[in-house]
Amino acid sequence: MRTRAAVALEAGKPLEIMEVNLEGPKAGEVLVEIKATGICHTDEFTRSGADPEGLFPAILGHEGAGVVLEVGEGVTSLKPGDHVIPLYTPECRQCEYCLNPKTNLCQAIRTTQGQGVMPDGTSRFSMLDGTPILHYMGCSTFANHTVLPEIALAKINPDAPFDKVCYIGCGVTTGIGAVINTAKVEIGSRAIVFGLGGIGLNVVQGLRLAGADQIVGVDLNNDKQAMAEHFGMTDFVNPSEVDGDLVAHLVELTKGGADYTFDATGNVNVMRTALEAAHKGWGESIVIGVAPAGAEISTRPFQLVTGRVWRGTAFGGASGRTDVPKIVDWYMDGKIEIDPMITHTLTLDEINKGFDLMHAGESIRAVVVF
Amino acid sequence: MRTRAAVALEAGKPLEIMEVNLEGPKAGEVLVEIKATGICHTDEFTRSGADPEGLFPAILGHEGAGVVLEVGEGVTSLKPGDHVIPLYTPECRQCEYCLNPKTNLCQAIRTTQGQGVMPDGTSRFSMLDGTPILHYMGCSTFANHTVLPEIALAKINPDAPFDKVCYIGCGVTTGIGAVINTAKVEIGSRAIVFGLGGIGLNVVQGLRLAGADQIVGVDLNNDKQAMAEHFGMTDFVNPSEVDGDLVAHLVELTKGGADYTFDATGNVNVMRTALEAAHKGWGESIVIGVAPAGAEISTRPFQLVTGRVWRGTAFGGASGRTDVPKIVDWYMDGKIEIDPMITHTLTLDEINKGFDLMHAGESIRAVVVF
Ligand SMILES: [Zn+2]
Ligand SMILES: [Zn+2]
Ligand SMILES: [Zn+2]
Ligand SMILES: [Zn+2]
Repeated sequence: MRTRAAVALEAGKPLEIMEVNLEGPKAGEVLVEIKATGICHTDEFTRSGADPEGLFPAILGHEGAGVVLEVGEGVTSLKPGDHVIPLYTPECRQCEYCLNPKTNLCQAIRTTQGQGVMPDGTSRFSMLDGTPILHYMGCSTFANHTVLPEIALAKINPDAPFDKVCYIGCGVTTGIGAVINTAKVEIGSRAIVFGLGGIGLNVVQGLRLAGADQIVGVDLNNDKQAMAEHFGMTDFVNPSEVDGDLVAHLVELTKGGADYTFDATGNVNVMRTALEAAHKGWGESIVIGVAPAGAEISTRPFQLVTGRVWRGTAFGGASGRTDVPKIVDWYMDGKIEIDPMITHTLTLDEINKGFDLMHAGESIRAVVVF
Repeated sequence: MRTRAAVALEAGKPLEIMEVNLEGPKAGEVLVEIKATGICHTDEFTRSGADPEGLFPAILGHEGAGVVLEVGEGVTSLKPGDHVIPLYTPECRQCEYCLNPKTNLCQAIRTTQGQGVMPDGTSRFSMLDGTPILHYMGCSTFANHTVLPEIALAKINPDAPFDKVCYIGCGVTTGIGAVINTAKVEIGSRAIVFGLGGIGLNVVQGLRLAGADQIVGVDLNNDKQAMAEHFGMTDFVNPSEVDGDLVAHLVELTKGGADYTFDATGNVNVMRTALEAAHKGWGESIVIGVAPAGAEISTRPFQLVTGRVWRGTAFGGASGRTDVPKIVDWYMDGKIEIDPMITHTLTLDEINKGFDLMHAGESIRAVVVF
């Protein structure tokens, strides 16, 4: 079949909207009509050429929602008409990682996914002249139709609005999951969130959901304060307005340091501050942000020896087929909010504007609706 | 009263054996006759002047065992004749830290302990001319008699031999506790221990006690292999004999990385190797060693985002009054071994020889017997 897609032809160039060929699903695969997709910083990381592992030409996008149109041979858990969210972290429920409750990093299709192809080693997308186009993060949601492995699709409540719950495909789950799955924040905790963008706001609402007593937000932009307070932030700190040492200020504000701190900036210096602002004896710091290639975190080992713990999280520690449908239900039940974070809705033709809005810091999340 | 002690008069100088004055115990304090004391790297760290927080003159030593001679006003948990091990990490059972099961870092007397004085702000030791001599780590076991707060003494099995169980006052508990309390190693785990000195050997036997399936020891000195195997090591790696990348070698040897890795070297480069040799998805790396002042650990945040956890441990995460008596019982029951690690027994007059043996790498542990 043919479908319309925004194609990243080469690093650093705007995406090009074009008709592309899409082969039907092979065994274990599913054809999905994408109804909406968010534009995430990770897409930009690859588009811009900053990702040393980026491959081109490719159809980016990994934060979508849609409807199953057709299933390949052997697919048993999905049927046409099911509403789904694509999962860049799949859940095969059979590999060593899926069977270990300590991790969500299913390895079933890791190698081929990293190469931009389906598990059989080939791409389903191609140019009209036959040139293959690579998949991206196993999702390629910047296309009106895409093919994914069955294990990379979460079946969700069919009443959920695509243009909102698509955000659960990455940002919402990453932020809320970091709190619930990775940090396992307890009721009454004190926490600090560094960076109040799309991920940080979801960390904030995850902390509210988990019953945190104090939720400190840290951001250089005072304009972020109102929205973060809406999502549950109790204290705002702008580092540029702090006299003296930021760590000391945060430790005092949290009465000895935070039980949990979260870096949602991707800045390795902020990651260090986040670790050091965690409480002596038991504070845990969670790295969420993706750092530039080659950047390194550092600290004195004394910080660890005196009881701080340094962790990271990918996709919020969520096992997608199990956890994503639950988060969709939380949204439908009003336990979490998404609507105020979807600040811009675009057509596929306007997708490059979404990247511009991101760079200008004007959007929390821009969503393309097909 | 008067007692004999090895006094560190100034940084970098040998200890001087001399008669000193010792005041009796004040309220909440206990007078202990030290029967034996180990000589630990931390004593040397301070003696040498490498510790920027070292204070002089002081009576070093923090790995002792002895008998209660006299108790001060209000002391209820100890009486003359009790056998005890001094605790540089006390356990008051009342502070915010003692009441939090995530940490063992009792803060009840932290400030005064760091200043080399008893909780009332004064020292019990002085020169015969009246010049005060400071306490060290709240213990000062390089004296035949010393005074400690009640909360800094673990009451132990009176049948236990002082010249062996003194080692439980630091090295044994640090190594075994890192496995049991901090890492909480599960039966069947794979582990790597970096550095097969006194601490590393105790990590090895802690892993055996915890039921680890694979216990890899890493050391530049092949002479360490036999003793480590005696304590349970299953695989030995000398990094200088590995072709290519050490991390890759260790990951292959442990079939994907170790579930738990332990740094017992204090070398920040080794700490990085230890983290990176931990298993993707769930591997945890525990920093035990004390790094040189100002040294920093670093890694790419990707190591954390893909599921590795970086922790540290102090005194093996042990709550001393509760856990140290149990470890003494484990020794008495033959669950753990100490005797082969006590390689040298010295008199107080020979204490500087103990430091020489440490530098020469000839001792695992030298113990001074009074
Ligand atoms: Zn994303
Ligand atoms: Zn799996
Ligand atoms: Zn020690
Ligand atoms: Zn305490």
